Amino acid sequence: MIIVMKPGAADSSIKAVVNYIESNGLTVHLSKGEEVTIIGAVGDKTRLSPENLTVYKDVDRIVPVTESYKLANKKFHPEPTQVKVGNAFIGPDTFAIMAGPCAVETEEQLMCIARAVKSSGASILRGGAYKPRTSPYSFQGLEEEGLRYMKRASEETGLATICEVVSQEAIEAAVKYVDMIQIGARNMQNFILLKEAGRSGLPVLLKRGLCSTIDEWLNAAEYIMSEGNPNVVLCERGIRTFETATRNTLDISAIPVLKEKTHLPVIVDPSHSTGAYKYVPSMAKAAAACGADGLMIEVHNDPAHALSDGPQSLTFEHFDRLTRELAPFCNIVGRNFRIPSEGETAL
Amino acid sequence: MIIVMKPGAADSSIKAVVNYIESNGLTVHLSKGEEVTIIGAVGDKTRLSPENLTVYKDVDRIVPVTESYKLANKKFHPEPTQVKVGNAFIGPDTFAIMAGPCAVETEEQLMCIARAVKSSGASILRGGAYKPRTSPYSFQGLEEEGLRYMKRASEETGLATICEVVSQEAIEAAVKYVDMIQIGARNMQNFILLKEAGRSGLPVLLKRGLCSTIDEWLNAAEYIMSEGNPNVVLCERGIRTFETATRNTLDISAIPVLKEKTHLPVIVDPSHSTGAYKYVPSMAKAAAACGADGLMIEVHNDPAHALSDGPQSLTFEHFDRLTRELAPFCNIVGRNFRIPSEGETAL
Amino acid sequence: MIIVMKPGAADSSIKAVVNYIESNGLTVHLSKGEEVTIIGAVGDKTRLSPENLTVYKDVDRIVPVTESYKLANKKFHPEPTQVKVGNAFIGPDTFAIMAGPCAVETEEQLMCIARAVKSSGASILRGGAYKPRTSPYSFQGLEEEGLRYMKRASEETGLATICEVVSQEAIEAAVKYVDMIQIGARNMQNFILLKEAGRSGLPVLLKRGLCSTIDEWLNAAEYIMSEGNPNVVLCERGIRTFETATRNTLDISAIPVLKEKTHLPVIVDPSHSTGAYKYVPSMAKAAAACGADGLMIEVHNDPAHALSDGPQSLTFEHFDRLTRELAPFCNIVGRNFRIPSEGETAL
Amino acid sequence: MIIVMKPGAADSSIKAVVNYIESNGLTVHLSKGEEVTIIGAVGDKTRLSPENLTVYKDVDRIVPVTESYKLANKKFHPEPTQVKVGNAFIGPDTFAIMAGPCAVETEEQLMCIARAVKSSGASILRGGAYKPRTSPYSFQGLEEEGLRYMKRASEETGLATICEVVSQEAIEAAVKYVDMIQIGARNMQNFILLKEAGRSGLPVLLKRGLCSTIDEWLNAAEYIMSEGNPNVVLCERGIRTFETATRNTLDISAIPVLKEKTHLPVIVDPSHSTGAYKYVPSMAKAAAACGADGLMIEVHNDPAHALSDGPQSLTFEHFDRLTRELAPFCNIVGRNFRIPSEGETAL
Repeated sequence: MIIVMKPGAADSSIKAVVNYIESNGLTVHLSKGEEVTIIGAVGDKTRLSPENLTVYKDVDRIVPVTESYKLANKKFHPEPTQVKVGNAFIGPDTFAIMAGPCAVETEEQLMCIARAVKSSGASILRGGAYKPRTSPYSFQGLEEEGLRYMKRASEETGLATICEVVSQEAIEAAVKYVDMIQIGARNMQNFILLKEAGRSGLPVLLKRGLCSTIDEWLNAAEYIMSEGNPNVVLCERGIRTFETATRNTLDISAIPVLKEKTHLPVIVDPSHSTGAYKYVPSMAKAAAACGADGLMIEVHNDPAHALSDGPQSLTFEHFDRLTRELAPFCNIVGRNFRIPSEGETAL
Repeated sequence: MIIVMKPGAADSSIKAVVNYIESNGLTVHLSKGEEVTIIGAVGDKTRLSPENLTVYKDVDRIVPVTESYKLANKKFHPEPTQVKVGNAFIGPDTFAIMAGPCAVETEEQLMCIARAVKSSGASILRGGAYKPRTSPYSFQGLEEEGLRYMKRASEETGLATICEVVSQEAIEAAVKYVDMIQIGARNMQNFILLKEAGRSGLPVLLKRGLCSTIDEWLNAAEYIMSEGNPNVVLCERGIRTFETATRNTLDISAIPVLKEKTHLPVIVDPSHSTGAYKYVPSMAKAAAACGADGLMIEVHNDPAHALSDGPQSLTFEHFDRLTRELAPFCNIVGRNFRIPSEGETAL
Repeated sequence: MIIVMKPGAADSSIKAVVNYIESNGLTVHLSKGEEVTIIGAVGDKTRLSPENLTVYKDVDRIVPVTESYKLANKKFHPEPTQVKVGNAFIGPDTFAIMAGPCAVETEEQLMCIARAVKSSGASILRGGAYKPRTSPYSFQGLEEEGLRYMKRASEETGLATICEVVSQEAIEAAVKYVDMIQIGARNMQNFILLKEAGRSGLPVLLKRGLCSTIDEWLNAAEYIMSEGNPNVVLCERGIRTFETATRNTLDISAIPVLKEKTHLPVIVDPSHSTGAYKYVPSMAKAAAACGADGLMIEVHNDPAHALSDGPQSLTFEHFDRLTRELAPFCNIVGRNFRIPSEGETAL
Repeated sequence: MIIVMKPGAADSSIKAVVNYIESNGLTVHLSKGEEVTIIGAVGDKTRLSPENLTVYKDVDRIVPVTESYKLANKKFHPEPTQVKVGNAFIGPDTFAIMAGPCAVETEEQLMCIARAVKSSGASILRGGAYKPRTSPYSFQGLEEEGLRYMKRASEETGLATICEVVSQEAIEAAVKYVDMIQIGARNMQNFILLKEAGRSGLPVLLKRGLCSTIDEWLNAAEYIMSEGNPNVVLCERGIRTFETATRNTLDISAIPVLKEKTHLPVIVDPSHSTGAYKYVPSMAKAAAACGADGLMIEVHNDPAHALSDGPQSLTFEHFDRLTRELAPFCNIVGRNFRIPSEGETAL
């Protein structure tokens, strides 16, 4: 941590800062320039509240030098992490596609979607059973019943499964039925839920909050990991900006930034970020081209009658065309991705 | 709800939309222009998912006509709501000031702050016992022990008390010790927590999410109210923008917008929005001048050694000067606010 | 300027940075910590491009220590600046109100508005003759003819006048007819125009760009001042955020931030920032309460038929009510503002 | 245009709106629902200021139905436009790469860069001679001298050339020396400059403003086209958001949105949007994969000593590696892009 003093800071002000740092057990490096004095603090920063120093006299600014996340930090764990989800793998050599309906509606619907997405190359079935909705009067999900359908779909197709959780109760149910849990964008800083997810034993997909910085996102991952759970996958799903032509703005440059900062796999959700099915294929290809470890895509048998997020869902036909178009991109970037031949899925 | 069709939409496309609306039990008003056909849908919109219509052929756009929040909506409840918190009142004739430390640290600290803020005119004592922190390695609060100190401070000073809650467990504890609970910005769309707050029986202070629109905020209030709890107070605390000179950007125009849309009281938190104590007085006065029902301000006996958010905390002296400067503003806008005379607090 | 090296930076990397700095004539202060080495550079930074250092090996980050604006900087000019505009003054003891139509439409319209705003306390008449419009098919202003009307309105009423300029040609015309020129938000970083405004000899009102940081804004002021023109007034007019309930978000905390960073007067435009006349009075009061030096407000004799920005214009009656409500706020904050008595304006 | 009236709007209010519309020569379609009355206005909207209607009594909201840009609109010009720049082509079948230094520094530097980028597959040489810089004390470009170097580089290598212009004077100079002019982000709504660019006769690259919506951007293109210049290319270069890990946020989803709304070619600038050379290759590939018509990339012979934007410039080696990696992506998306063989460039 570096403390930049104001030009002409009094010696007494400098001494006060030095004393505060040393009294918290850290070591001080002093650099007096002609104009400006700079104070470096070395040691265990968790022992002091650095931001407090800004209330000291003549302090101009505090510059943090190290990140507050450790377990998620590539500096301390340079090798990319692979996360196993049921029979599927996410990162670093495969291109994993999670697909399925925004909300699980009926068992028949889910089975039919599961078969379709599998035959087009998805390895993980997504389906929402607990839906966080902006209005209390919107459909809130089938809850545990929905999870049971997920389990049956997995048993029949062999697909791994993922479901969003919104509470400890939902986590407890999810552990019984699915292979991976998802923390949604709105709960990215619900620290209680993050800790419970960390203790669940299941791999966790952590979506980025709509207005969360990459740094806050990695700190949220740290909450999960600090409970002993190393299996975290990050999912970029768009941030909120002034542009209204798309629902959110997909922050595609987050992918190379994350690849530099963390060893955790990163996938992209082009469905929620754009909010429109017609933009999904372009964004899926952009994600594959620039190094994402996979995708989460909404697919529905009948988007016009979906109970949630119909406008951004692909039909089976659209999804199949997309995965076939994606395959050569995966090939160029050196990622395993294959679409089963007709004979295989018939089995 | 209005559905705008694309120029030259086929009759079959128009018919499909009309059928979908009518099959959901709503009535259709058709307006065929030379260029554009417009379809109005009248009836109970909770019976259909309007956004799905965007996947219908030749549909250009869906325009909602009514807000999805009802209980929080001024249209259906024109009189301003007054919320009673312990012995204090929020809205519409008083100017209520909540003050206290970001985090409760010790009983002595809290008592000392409680006496100070009371003598300067605060009517509600704030104090954090459950702290949602970006990093898992930062101080997370004293939890139930902190709430006990809040109760004692209330007993001694007569101040009403408010504390942030982050989980059902925290709500259960809070019910025993404090007069009002707060849902923080990061949990504004933690719908499970909102519902539990709605069932707690305590008045709820709902902070705006960092990137939440006013519409989403009112829908979050609706979650609390739809559980039978009418005592919701909204707190504007800054939104996230590109500007970095302040921690967040206080959306001061949210106050007149809310006064037009809802009957719920609105207060302003100038401490978190600016992140710097030196900007707090100006923002407090701006809030009073433009019609806010009160303020939430961080006050600390020793900001330089605060365990959380020291840089934005006022000292006792600063806080006292601020409330004395605020009093004439309250007077102009016709709000009751008084600072006890020295004799009164001595009692 | 401080250069933070990465943990474990090689000696050769450190040496390369030091050489680069010294070869540009600056002095180096080296501070080697156990983890991190910090390099301070002292001297005339305009001689090197500091950002280039980020491409040097093992450089983690560059931290600027001093602001790039000098003439606008309060550090080198602590006394607040007063700007004289015709017979009017802006800052630091008065509260100056600029009012008038978004666009000058006819001479009669302008005369009628000029008399009305004067009788309600405005000291400067605003009126647009060159309108920057989003679409090329919208009304673009009366140009020089509009300026001539401004001059006549000034001659009759004694009001000072201000007009937006969008080109060198417009500046040349403005010099002949009005007392102050305005650089609009869209042109805040049109550096050619800023320099021409600096050479015009007229005081300049510089509006903040919709997505400009305060730092960029002060650098834009520096462009004007570095041409020898010290008479710059800043105008906060809202920034672009995700919120759509108001046209833009008035960044009210920019006022105390600017009061700390610069000696230039700061006024607020509540009309453009909110885009709705009904929110203007609340924002005007907030601005007065928190230390603004004045306001710019759109007033129109017939908002429903205005050729530009009708929805945000006040009627004469609304404007008169607003200034009478504002007067006591000006009184509290110690600013001179008076509304002429009926006898005075009759003269 | 649709006018939504408030629930329970008075007949007199409805009549007033209808009168206003009809008195401006438009036709009215009235749709009275049980709750809400909707008024459609058909005809030439440039004859009225639609936003004014919001000041009419009982008007809830105005919904525009058609876009204000016509010449740039794909609805009226469905075929994709190809723009010829010197010997190069932009869109729809080629993948065009513009490369070169942020600022032209010396003739030798420019020649050396021109040869390098040509041998790696660039077809257009970029180079800044007029630099809009945030601070007046930063290097502002070589102006006409820089343009002369551009011309010589073109004569030697056969590359087409592009240069940013910031004033009428710069346009007049550019016409003599280069093949295409660029309007930078800060000038996207400098309407005077847009019109002059429209009259220049040269093709124009129009960068998106940092906080401009796609709609505003297309209206800016309309300014150029409405002066009779159909040769406009759009360049996405990142928008301003709260994220600070990259300089700006590349709005990659703008590409499919633009492909739906306009027939103009769209290229991507990964250098300015990320501000860091290390993120440029990933973003370049993402752009190619999702349908961009080309790229603008900063390349410098010695980034560490560049006079402007060194940190985001690629070295020759990095640029060559990037174009070789890009080639297979262009192949998949069906775009012509070839890197000259060694023999060819030797000629």
